[in-house]
Amino acid sequence: MLYEITVPYFIKMLHNLEHILEKGARYAETKKFDMDVLLHSRLAPDQFPLTRQIQIACDTAKLAAFRLTEKPAPTHADTEKTYAEFQERIKSTIQYLESLSAADFKGSETKQITTPRWEGQWVTGAEFVSHHALPNFYFHVTTAYSILRHNGVDVGKKDYLGAMPFKK
Amino acid sequence: MLYEITVPYFIKMLHNLEHILEKGARYAETKKFDMDVLLHSRLAPDQFPLTRQIQIACDTAKLAAFRLTEKPAPTHADTEKTYAEFQERIKSTIQYLESLSAADFKGSETKQITTPRWEGQWVTGAEFVSHHALPNFYFHVTTAYSILRHNGVDVGKKDYLGAMPFKK
Repeated sequence: MLYEITVPYFIKMLHNLEHILEKGARYAETKKFDMDVLLHSRLAPDQFPLTRQIQIACDTAKLAAFRLTEKPAPTHADTEKTYAEFQERIKSTIQYLESLSAADFKGSETKQITTPRWEGQWVTGAEFVSHHALPNFYFHVTTAYSILRHNGVDVGKKDYLGAMPFKK
Repeated sequence: MLYEITVPYFIKMLHNLEHILEKGARYAETKKFDMDVLLHSRLAPDQFPLTRQIQIACDTAKLAAFRLTEKPAPTHADTEKTYAEFQERIKSTIQYLESLSAADFKGSETKQITTPRWEGQWVTGAEFVSHHALPNFYFHVTTAYSILRHNGVDVGKKDYLGAMPFKK
């Protein structure tokens, strides 16, 4: 059950993140400034820039899936510098998520989940998803979106949400 | 099942929203400017200000619960002007959510959900929650947070995420 409410939406939203970053890169090209300017932009002087928003969005999805399934995840040294490297980071996260199946998440609802920061404390897998993974993931994708929009990139809510599986 | 992954977290995050708005109001008081300035701040000239971020966060939670359960929800005319009225809006949304139980959501996973904007198209309740309600709700809470932080209010990720149900 945790698979169904996480992995497909992590993948969808990471594709949406690729898409809004592409819009940022096109904007930089049109306005003749370096994409690095956007990558190093931030909404507040003591908040992370776009680079870290991308890395943490990826890590939130990757590490949530890893902690719930224990399926080996790709390591990322956070050494990306260029736009192409950040897109590569997202792509490699999506590939990992795509390699997982619902069966890998069997029993994860009640699994004890911890992180290095929690000093031995833990929550159940179901709590981890709803109290941490989902709100944190959406936080960083939204903040990436806001940094782009704040700087004039033509992104809208539909770019963030992506397509809906409409039926008639 | 849809109750468990929505209502408790809508309530939790709306309390976190009350809390960061309180921090904004205290900041305005300390810096001797009118809280209305923060309420009308925005991250981009064509993006909604804090007032609308609060209203839409509330509506996303309220209308998601209403559409899934058909339990009558309070109406809000979007006429709030003052800080106190916005806090009242959040409180009334929380009260509605607190009146619902898991039983009210029985069968909602496969229920056909539509909105006035979707021109007769629909998605299942489960799709509605994961493709729309959760990402849209977190989008607006995060954007409210970012507007405050961008304007110097001392809010951090812990204020956004709130407490974790840690066990030892």
